[in-house]
Amino acid sequence: MFNIALLGAGRIGQIHAGNIAAHKETTLWSVVDPNEENATRIANQYQTRQQSVHEALTDPNVHAVLIASATDTHADLIELAAKHGKAIFCEKPVHLDLARVRDCLKVVKEYNVPLFIGFNRRFDPQFRRVKTEVEQGRIGKPESLVITSRDPSPPPAEYVRVSGGMFHDMTIHDFDMARFIMGEEPVAIYAQGSNLVDPAIGEAGDIDTAFIVLKYASGALATIVNSRRSAYGYDQRLELHGSNGLLSAGNILENQVQHFSATGCNSALPEHFFLQRYKEAYAAEWQHFVAVLRGDVKPDCSGDDGERALYLADKALESLRSKREIAL
Amino acid sequence: MFNIALLGAGRIGQIHAGNIAAHKETTLWSVVDPNEENATRIANQYQTRQQSVHEALTDPNVHAVLIASATDTHADLIELAAKHGKAIFCEKPVHLDLARVRDCLKVVKEYNVPLFIGFNRRFDPQFRRVKTEVEQGRIGKPESLVITSRDPSPPPAEYVRVSGGMFHDMTIHDFDMARFIMGEEPVAIYAQGSNLVDPAIGEAGDIDTAFIVLKYASGALATIVNSRRSAYGYDQRLELHGSNGLLSAGNILENQVQHFSATGCNSALPEHFFLQRYKEAYAAEWQHFVAVLRGDVKPDCSGDDGERALYLADKALESLRSKREIAL
Amino acid sequence: MFNIALLGAGRIGQIHAGNIAAHKETTLWSVVDPNEENATRIANQYQTRQQSVHEALTDPNVHAVLIASATDTHADLIELAAKHGKAIFCEKPVHLDLARVRDCLKVVKEYNVPLFIGFNRRFDPQFRRVKTEVEQGRIGKPESLVITSRDPSPPPAEYVRVSGGMFHDMTIHDFDMARFIMGEEPVAIYAQGSNLVDPAIGEAGDIDTAFIVLKYASGALATIVNSRRSAYGYDQRLELHGSNGLLSAGNILENQVQHFSATGCNSALPEHFFLQRYKEAYAAEWQHFVAVLRGDVKPDCSGDDGERALYLADKALESLRSKREIAL
Amino acid sequence: MFNIALLGAGRIGQIHAGNIAAHKETTLWSVVDPNEENATRIANQYQTRQQSVHEALTDPNVHAVLIASATDTHADLIELAAKHGKAIFCEKPVHLDLARVRDCLKVVKEYNVPLFIGFNRRFDPQFRRVKTEVEQGRIGKPESLVITSRDPSPPPAEYVRVSGGMFHDMTIHDFDMARFIMGEEPVAIYAQGSNLVDPAIGEAGDIDTAFIVLKYASGALATIVNSRRSAYGYDQRLELHGSNGLLSAGNILENQVQHFSATGCNSALPEHFFLQRYKEAYAAEWQHFVAVLRGDVKPDCSGDDGERALYLADKALESLRSKREIAL
Repeated sequence: MFNIALLGAGRIGQIHAGNIAAHKETTLWSVVDPNEENATRIANQYQTRQQSVHEALTDPNVHAVLIASATDTHADLIELAAKHGKAIFCEKPVHLDLARVRDCLKVVKEYNVPLFIGFNRRFDPQFRRVKTEVEQGRIGKPESLVITSRDPSPPPAEYVRVSGGMFHDMTIHDFDMARFIMGEEPVAIYAQGSNLVDPAIGEAGDIDTAFIVLKYASGALATIVNSRRSAYGYDQRLELHGSNGLLSAGNILENQVQHFSATGCNSALPEHFFLQRYKEAYAAEWQHFVAVLRGDVKPDCSGDDGERALYLADKALESLRSKREIAL
Repeated sequence: MFNIALLGAGRIGQIHAGNIAAHKETTLWSVVDPNEENATRIANQYQTRQQSVHEALTDPNVHAVLIASATDTHADLIELAAKHGKAIFCEKPVHLDLARVRDCLKVVKEYNVPLFIGFNRRFDPQFRRVKTEVEQGRIGKPESLVITSRDPSPPPAEYVRVSGGMFHDMTIHDFDMARFIMGEEPVAIYAQGSNLVDPAIGEAGDIDTAFIVLKYASGALATIVNSRRSAYGYDQRLELHGSNGLLSAGNILENQVQHFSATGCNSALPEHFFLQRYKEAYAAEWQHFVAVLRGDVKPDCSGDDGERALYLADKALESLRSKREIAL
Repeated sequence: MFNIALLGAGRIGQIHAGNIAAHKETTLWSVVDPNEENATRIANQYQTRQQSVHEALTDPNVHAVLIASATDTHADLIELAAKHGKAIFCEKPVHLDLARVRDCLKVVKEYNVPLFIGFNRRFDPQFRRVKTEVEQGRIGKPESLVITSRDPSPPPAEYVRVSGGMFHDMTIHDFDMARFIMGEEPVAIYAQGSNLVDPAIGEAGDIDTAFIVLKYASGALATIVNSRRSAYGYDQRLELHGSNGLLSAGNILENQVQHFSATGCNSALPEHFFLQRYKEAYAAEWQHFVAVLRGDVKPDCSGDDGERALYLADKALESLRSKREIAL
Repeated sequence: MFNIALLGAGRIGQIHAGNIAAHKETTLWSVVDPNEENATRIANQYQTRQQSVHEALTDPNVHAVLIASATDTHADLIELAAKHGKAIFCEKPVHLDLARVRDCLKVVKEYNVPLFIGFNRRFDPQFRRVKTEVEQGRIGKPESLVITSRDPSPPPAEYVRVSGGMFHDMTIHDFDMARFIMGEEPVAIYAQGSNLVDPAIGEAGDIDTAFIVLKYASGALATIVNSRRSAYGYDQRLELHGSNGLLSAGNILENQVQHFSATGCNSALPEHFFLQRYKEAYAAEWQHFVAVLRGDVKPDCSGDDGERALYLADKALESLRSKREIAL
């Protein structure tokens, strides 16, 4: 049984708390959050203790930490946890600044603890199946990938201001997905974007609608279609075209009921947002991390993966600003 | 917190054990099964005690029993539980003999305990949505219902022999579904059937492929399409046609990945069998039973519902044998 | 080049006129209709002559007749045409009275002319593909067939009065389809029906909603789901379940545009009625008849097929009235 | 009745010949093609005469010409036809050289004859419906458009060499579609491409796989996904995302039959290539041109539209070569 200290008891922390508690090999040993209300809610729900960061990291009973706190605390907490020899599951991103990420990963390497970065979508059964099938050669050589990723509604402008911007906050998942599916690193990137959804986002210096184009050494291409709004629910799809066919991963609908009437056939919408759509993915990534704790496997999504996705976000922003394709 | 004694630790018992344990208002107080291996497995998994039937029913800590034992024990256990004042959740059917069912329900009435019959499909979100939408008038007046229900593969002939036959074992769910969706009682029934899947089923005096036609006082019609085999997974659909439109509840596919190649577009199959397809339904019916325990609602699916479905199975068999429509 | 006399210039006659004129091996030699307006319209549109029945049948230039006149004239016209040695394409049915059909077919046999009965749905590419695939063994042995057939709206009661009733007017297509797909004759039939759509239909002694169940010597079953109304367009589907899988032929939608919004995903309706849905089928059956004229093939759908479908309609009515399964 | 001279009797010419002959207001007056075999085939099939270019253009019976000859003859033929006062239907493109196009359009303007450029996809019922629905405000303000356009297989390298390259030969249709759907002119373009399908295409200096990104003054974005190959048939789709929803136009499948078996559900492929998919579009654009001839409407797709699509192809190539976004 592995004892886990949960650092961060917000919305994402709650999902992880449920998965930690439900897994028969892990115990939610403690919850850590300066927000008393959040921490208490989880402590009560799972009948566990509250600790400070210091208490958790120095507690010999704690085998691993799950970092789901505010983005700007991730790198510091990773370094602290590494120095105390704890295995680490950290929500993306490690940090918004690439240099800080690199320093942090050096510390992790020095203390030689496992670090898993929570790019949850890699564990979505739909996308994973595409990955598996392309590896099995079902569509021949991959030639072009289209990732569609639209949130149901934009975050508040105050969040946008500290988020690092759309590429670093939202598209970073899609950069990781492109890397996951294509299995090779892009050699060029181009980004185009607009502020169409909420003027406050534009005033905060950010965009909310974007297309990104990636090119790979093999000649394969990928594009990412992003929007901060979607009137019809969380739009999370991808299509991978290859020399012998196409694999497409569609949205999961809220139900399978269809209503036929004089005005057409009405079907259900995609599941509303990430809590619904990626519920299975969150459970599956925790399964994977437990296998890491057991020593059975290495993290499927490492600090280097986190760094690489951040690098692509940086370069996308550089392209957007310079109106040029950027060589990688 | 309600303490539940689980009577029967087989395949269905295990599903219920998980739902009892996962619900924050119920505790799996004990497990009862003469099959030592089954009982021990659940007792260990959920860290609970084993009891005999007598111990469980006389234990003042036990608020309710969940009967998931062999079919021929249901009526006796219901009566015993009723006499000890326990609330009862019983898997279908109460008994294969209608007279025995009626006697049993009299006892339940006499001791005035809640009795819920586990027609789980009523709690499937797809079918329930159809029910809700038809009640909201979305298709006007219901005119004809088609229920398709095919199992992936037939049970062994030895099971068929004690099952009461296809109508009593399998179609009984569809009879209940027809009652649930149509909201009125049929006035006539006709059944046609064949032994096509496994000769051993025919040798056991049963059929494995059937069509049943029901007529209602309103003039509405329903048909049930049954097979003990389906090469493509568990086929569980219904279509309700009304004066202003059609509601259809389709299968839930195993995934949303499509593979396009020179030979066509290949999509996933329906979820394989009832453990997958009705996972949510089992949890939802347990939610409902907890509300019954709380006294908030009456059982959505009562002993009378169980009796009525059995009556339809009897009459279907009478029709099959007499080659006549039977007035109800 | 084959010269065709078109007997009957109504709605169906117009479809056939178009196909006759468009086919490079046939000429619309003449049009015959006591309704002056209808006859003139087609004669003008295709720049062809009008004839009387007598003129057309005695005209040595006429190779074949296409009978699309009122139902009660079919048998007489078939006999006349046969006696004049003309090849015959006749819309269903030959006659509503089975004895009259048999007499008529004797005359056809005596004069040894080709007779094709226009069960157009056999030439629908969807249904034909199902037929081809089942013959190729794609689903193993056929076990159960469900035919769904709903018209968008009921005919006027005055038409119902002379139509022979729903089974003889509408379901007769489905009886033929069941025969086409199953490739064997049923041994038992049961019918259930109601008057739900239009009280005037009930007053005319007819039904507008029906389920029919057929059983075959092989043990295979078929059901037909009928309604005289469908709020969502012409509903023309079938599903054939076999030992190794299922073949389904769905509706053809009016377009492939989907509209996703906060209220769901809205798709197009099925093509509105038979003129749209079976446009290709009408052209294909004409292609087939030209091959018959050439002497390349025998009629795919003969007088015997017409007789057999009528027989099933008779027996369905007998079952409906007697509330019994009828042995065939 | 309008008499049409068909200039060019190749594959596209044959489609148009059929539509001209089938339309009740147009006659295929003559066919002109230096390829004797092609010209004779059409002349025989439609029982019409052959003419030289000079004969056709000076024939006072000819009201209009349909130019479906080799690309490099279009501009010269347009000018000649304009000078002889004939109305002009010309297959895309007017010319591969933008300056030549502009000169040519000046001549057309000077002689004031109607010129329609055959961007057939504007008349595809699917895409037109999207256009209509967006104009009706069904998805609010358009924000991003994704056009997927993949040919089943690449043309021979010798054709590629004279085609002007992928952007000018293939993507030009998608540039026009983007203009048609968005209803505004782009202000920036970026293109990325690769040679993945056939090395001979690369040796001819061309690409066969491309992504193009367009930005509009309103901030809206569009992307075009192109490939010269598609193992699963002609892939012709678009999705338009707006502030209130999404409109998607899917492929038209070859049939509606689905085969369910142990290996999944197999559906039909998209219609194979443009002759099938755009059959209705070709007929509809001819309908439109007849309305132009009648003087009822102006050409929906003018010489200016042809010029503008070519301009975008030029700029896409400039972007591909310079690895920069190009301002328009």
